[in-house]
Formats: sequence, C-alpha cells, structure tokens
Amino acid sequence: MNAVELIERKRDAGRLTDKEIKWLISAYTDGTVTDYQMSAMAMAVFLNGLDADELAAWTAAMLHSGDTLDLSDFDMPKVDKHSTGGVGDKVSIPLAPIVAACGVAVPMMSGRGLGHTGGTLDKLDSIPGFDTQLDVARFREVLGRCGFVMAGQSETLVPADRKLYALRDASGTVPSIPLIASSIMSKKLAEDLDGLVLDVKVGSGAFMTDMDRARQLARTMVGLGDSHGVEVNALITDMDQPLGNMVGNSNEIAESIDVLERRGPADLTEITIALAVEMVRVADLDDPEGRVQRALDSGAAMERFLCMVEAHDGDPRIVGDRSLLPMATETTAIEAPRSGYVARCDARGIGIAAMRLGAGRTRKEDAVDPGVGIERHAKVGTEVTEGEALCVLTHRPGDISDALERARAAFEIADEAPAQTALIRERITSAER
Amino acid sequence: MNAVELIERKRDAGRLTDKEIKWLISAYTDGTVTDYQMSAMAMAVFLNGLDADELAAWTAAMLHSGDTLDLSDFDMPKVDKHSTGGVGDKVSIPLAPIVAACGVAVPMMSGRGLGHTGGTLDKLDSIPGFDTQLDVARFREVLGRCGFVMAGQSETLVPADRKLYALRDASGTVPSIPLIASSIMSKKLAEDLDGLVLDVKVGSGAFMTDMDRARQLARTMVGLGDSHGVEVNALITDMDQPLGNMVGNSNEIAESIDVLERRGPADLTEITIALAVEMVRVADLDDPEGRVQRALDSGAAMERFLCMVEAHDGDPRIVGDRSLLPMATETTAIEAPRSGYVARCDARGIGIAAMRLGAGRTRKEDAVDPGVGIERHAKVGTEVTEGEALCVLTHRPGDISDALERARAAFEIADEAPAQTALIRERITSAER
Repeated sequence: MNAVELIERKRDAGRLTDKEIKWLISAYTDGTVTDYQMSAMAMAVFLNGLDADELAAWTAAMLHSGDTLDLSDFDMPKVDKHSTGGVGDKVSIPLAPIVAACGVAVPMMSGRGLGHTGGTLDKLDSIPGFDTQLDVARFREVLGRCGFVMAGQSETLVPADRKLYALRDASGTVPSIPLIASSIMSKKLAEDLDGLVLDVKVGSGAFMTDMDRARQLARTMVGLGDSHGVEVNALITDMDQPLGNMVGNSNEIAESIDVLERRGPADLTEITIALAVEMVRVADLDDPEGRVQRALDSGAAMERFLCMVEAHDGDPRIVGDRSLLPMATETTAIEAPRSGYVARCDARGIGIAAMRLGAGRTRKEDAVDPGVGIERHAKVGTEVTEGEALCVLTHRPGDISDALERARAAFEIADEAPAQTALIRERITSAER
Repeated sequence: MNAVELIERKRDAGRLTDKEIKWLISAYTDGTVTDYQMSAMAMAVFLNGLDADELAAWTAAMLHSGDTLDLSDFDMPKVDKHSTGGVGDKVSIPLAPIVAACGVAVPMMSGRGLGHTGGTLDKLDSIPGFDTQLDVARFREVLGRCGFVMAGQSETLVPADRKLYALRDASGTVPSIPLIASSIMSKKLAEDLDGLVLDVKVGSGAFMTDMDRARQLARTMVGLGDSHGVEVNALITDMDQPLGNMVGNSNEIAESIDVLERRGPADLTEITIALAVEMVRVADLDDPEGRVQRALDSGAAMERFLCMVEAHDGDPRIVGDRSLLPMATETTAIEAPRSGYVARCDARGIGIAAMRLGAGRTRKEDAVDPGVGIERHAKVGTEVTEGEALCVLTHRPGDISDALERARAAFEIADEAPAQTALIRERITSAER
C-alpha cells in the first residue's frame, strides 16, 4: 500500500477501508510511514473527518498497535474513568479508591499535564517516595492488593498513540473529535475493561469549549465503546472555573484527601461521587449510590487509598501530616479590586497562572515543581468585599508578575450575582447517544 | 513565532500575515520548522487555500529563501518559458534557440521528469557529452555566447522550494493551485526576468485535468508576475494526447531538431511558434511573428541550438547524424484492433507506458534510459485500418507486457471521426486575467 495515495484520498474527502487504515497505523508505528506523511494525514482527517466505520477501524488499529492488558484472572468487574482534562481536576485520586471499595477493580492508567491542564501522575509524584512507573507485573500486583492502581501507561501499550499524540501536539492537529476519541478509546480499550466512565469537560479550561462539541465527543466515544462491547457512560461537566479550590500538585493531593475525609469542597465532592456512581453502575453492581456512600462513610475508601500509596512506595503519613507534602513558602494574595460578586473565575487563566509558577509544563520535557500552586478563595457567585483575597499563589522567591497578572485577569467582579450553572451538564449513555 | 500557532490558524481557515509567512518559509528552510509541521501546513493550505496577499507573501518568501540571479549586465530583454509538464513536451528545446535568434536572452532553468511526465534535462542528457549541471559563471557564459542556456536549477536558488516540493510530493499535497503557483513563480522570479511565458497544460496527461483549474492556475501565476513587475502571458494548451509523435528522450531530441529544420510535426510546431511569439511579445520587441519566422527560415535558430550544444560539451554532430543518439534496438508495434478513427490517444497512458519502458522515473532517484520510448503513428482523428501500427515501442530486450498493455489501453478506435479540439485553448495575459 502507498501512504501518498491514502493521504490524497482523505484529502479529497474520500473513505479509507478497514484494511488501509490498519496498514497505515501499523506502518506509521514501525516507521514505514513517516512523521511528515502522518501529520499531513492527521490534518486531512482534522479537516475532512472520519465516518463511523473509519473511526472504528482507526481505533481498533491503534488498540492493536502494541500489547493489550489481559486482566481476565481478576474476577471483579473492571472499570476505569477518563477525564478529557481540566484545571484543578484531581478527581481520579479520591475516585479510584472509592470505587475500589465498592467492589470494582480500577486499573487506571493516567497521564501527565501539558499546557494549562494538570495530570494525575504529576500530582501523585508530589507524594514523597511515590513511584508512578510500574511494570506490568507490579501493576497487576497493586491492582490485586488494593483493588485499584494508578500508573503511567506502559510503553508497549498502544505505541501508535504515543507517537501520534506527540506528532499532533507539534503539528496543530490536536482538537479533532475523531483523533481525540480514537486516542482516548484505544488506550482505554487496551486495559481490558468491562466498563468505562468518561468525564468530558466543557468550558474555558477544557479542550472542548462549547457544549455541542463536548456532546459530539462524548457520543463518539460512547459509540466506540459500544462497538467494542464495553459499556461507556459519559458525564459532561463544567470546566469554566477550576474544580475544587486547589490548583497545583501537592495542594491537589491534600484536597483529594479532604474528599476521602468527607470534608472536600462541594463541587469536587459532587463530581467525584457522581462519577463513582456511574462506575459502579457500568460495573453492573446493585445500589451504586448506597455503595459509594458507604465506601466513604466507613473509611473503606481511605483504607484503599493508603494501601495504594504504600504499594507505590509513597509515604502514607501524608494523610495525617500534610506538612510532609512539599510546599513552597512564599505566598501572594490577589485581592478583590472592588466589592461585588465573583462573575468569572476563568479556569484557563488560573491554569496558565499555575503553570507559570512551575506547577505545569509548556513542553513535555519541562520539570514540574510539586510545591507551588494556587488556592482559590472565592468561587463564581461568591460575594466579596474590596481587598478580600480572591486567591493565594504559593510560589518560590523571585518574579511572579506574569503569573499574578494571569491570575488577576481570570477574575471578574460584577454588581450582581451571576446565574448559577449546573456542574454536571449532561449524561450520555449508549441508549441516549 | 510559533509554527503550531500558524498551522492552527490556517487549519481554521484564518489568514497569515506577511511577517508570519516570511518567518515560516525561512524557519522551514533552516530546519527550525520541521518537515512534519510543514506537511501539516501544506495540507491546511491545500484544503483552506491562501488569499492573494498570502500567496504574494508566500511566493516572495520562497523567492528570497536563497540566492537570486543578477543578469542586469545583459542588456537584452530576458524572458523564460515554463510548462506545467506533459507527455512528449519537448517544446523548450526548439523554442529557446528560436527566441534567442529573435534577440531575446533566454536563461532557462529546467527540471527532470517524474511520473508520467518527462523533463527537459533528461532529454538533453541523451545528447552524448551534454552537461546540464552548470555553475553560475558557466551559466552566464553560455547565455552570453549563445543567447540562451538550458540548465538545472542551482542548489542555492530558492532552496525553500527544493525542500517543499520534495515534501509535497511525499505527503499528498502536490495539486494545490497556490502551492503550484508559488513553487513555479518563485523559481522563475529568481531568474531576474523581464518577461515570462507560461504553457499551462490541460487534459489527461497534465496536472490540471479540467479547464477551470487550468485557467485558475494561469490567472494566479499571471497575477504573481504582475505583483513582481514581470510581464507574464500564459497559453492554456491541450494535453489530452501527447505533443508531437515522440515520447522518450533521444527520440524527443531528434523531433526537436526536426522542428528547427522546419519538418517537425504540425502540433509541436504550432505550439513552439505560438510560445516563441509570446516570448518575443513580452520582451517588447516589434513584429514577433516575423522575427520568429525569420529565425527559423534563416537557419539562425539552428545555429543557436548548435552553439548551445557545443557550449554544454554536447556532440553537435547529432544534427546531421541521428544515429549518434543512443537508441534501443528492439521495437514492438501496437496494431489497430479494428478499422475506424482514433478517438482517443490518452497522454497519461502513453506517458506511463514510456515510463515503464525506462524513459521516465517513478522515484526521483531512479535512472532514465535515454534510448527507449514510443513513437506514435496515429493522432486523434486519424483514420486507421485494422492491423495498422498505432504506435511503436522502442525498448530493451525483456518483458514489456506492462508497457504494452498501458499503451494499448491508451488508444480508442471509433466508427466516426471525433470532434477536433483546438490545440491552444486559451490565452491569458495581465489585462485579461
């Protein structure tokens, strides 16, 4: 087969056959198809799309580009969650132990942050001693011992996505629904799951800034799950303002523990519980709401969390003593310029401010500083008086004027309280897509 | 500046500024912008286009990506011709000496063939001893001595196009009007011309298979000439069937000499004279038709041709003794399967058949055999009787079944003579574009 011919066909809005897509992805993985050919193809797909059959073939070809997990020896239902990424989104960290405590195995493969969005692995890395790089044997062992595991993706799983994602990032072809959907779903389908819950973020801090595209992405992924026999439920949730009050790494671990201790912020707790209920639901267990509540109330979720931290060589004493988490010592508050109501607290702006402090990375090779971040004091709708702190930046000594300016510009104070929007905007399941 | 941001803008059908385009082309030339970024950009340009200002900036940036010729010490008008390429298109070879004999300097930079189309340099290479690779000093010397020169493009002229053309060829982004127009015009504008004549081919054997796109390409290039103060006239000419009777290399040199000896085939002679007249016209000399006719009738054009062959170290005796040109000894005829009229003699099919014999290359690194080719005996409209030769393949010993099949399929015999179409379809000049 010939790469140029396939690129030309997609360029001219034609269809690729299953066989052609399988060859393309395999030849790209082994280097026969070059990066510059694949980036031209990705742009053609971006602009001309893939139909449902092409997308299913593309996802299957990615999925089979490397190893897949075999978790058939675990006799519990296996369910994972994927979030499309946002600011302050530490949900996975309290969620996975809650769901594990409900009797569902959670083999969670997570990513690192890029740009204004954070990543679960970077947050876990701020736990002293914590090792996110597990080989398959250790991954299985932790899953067996604690009922869940949170690790970086194995290099041998879906290598096509590893290559293609880096290429798309550097060639302007990231926000394409078929390319995003196939990237996410190929990785998740490689985990040998019985069910999957998607948290599709919508708003200024998300990939998808409008509801229509978020819905389209959610439906596309639910459909791909269907065609592979994996039940997928999706929640579309708000990412106009950061989730919870903490944006950073250490501070997000602390806030995650708060949720497990039933004293987390309302928005973060609401989304965590809603996603936990969906995960128990796709696992086909009875009384999902009751199971989730009992997992929290009984302390079983916290026990699972501690099990996992120890299994990853992390220091479990962080739960009792937050001062064991690395934390910068300088703090600078941003004060309300006038009295009124917080009308906007832009997630993207706060995310970029935190990144500029060192909590995130602009390029994949950048290091992350676990001890810096932003604590938001006032959510959208809060009444504030002039001079009151809207948020506090924790940072290293030195010039942080750029981060301050970004954080300041993220807030807008108005005379009247804004209309409240729902945190969970929509729920999409196979039947409803 | 950031390549990804520019790619995203063009992907979303936005505009790039002059400064951005200048940076992009320069950064691509020096390797700061990678091949995979440029191929994604090329695909975005292919699908979303460039407006007139962007195209002018793109062409200027390419033009200034390397050296440009300075021919200001030649006090004659300097005019070149460019053909978009076809099958049997050896026009440059008789044309340049005719125009030189009219008092116009012709600093012609030519290319090599690829795919089903031939290239002037490959044809010239079949003249024993002929050297197409001249440095700038020798290029100027031959131009001064003979009034014209035909050589490969210097590596230092328009390096951006050299890189981008190879990339487009391998990434499915060749037939884009702005990319073709800027590629051709940047190279021609680097030659320090006063005028330029374009032969835009249309038909099965051409890049542009329909008249609308051929017209659009011609108008785009005439406009680019205008904006750089170079007068450009374009003829749109037929490439549904091969031009002249010979397709190959040695045999096309022989047919070119026939034109200079005023015994060339009618179609080839007609186009050669029409383009020569246009070249003299854009040079602003009086009586173009008269000058061209005299250049041929007086033998002055032939003298110029011999001057050039000698200046390039070629053997001038080929004019008197065609047997000095390399020629394979095997011949196989394709006979008319029935009596009737030739309704079709597909240029692309004949071009591919000749390429399969070895007269052309599928990949840039392939060698070309100068001594093989096809002589067509019957043009479209000719009445033939069953068993009469439609064309004769000259080839090396061995299996030529693939070439034979291609050549056979290129002909169609009908009961009635087809409607004749004009060889020169349209003329486009600045005033008319």
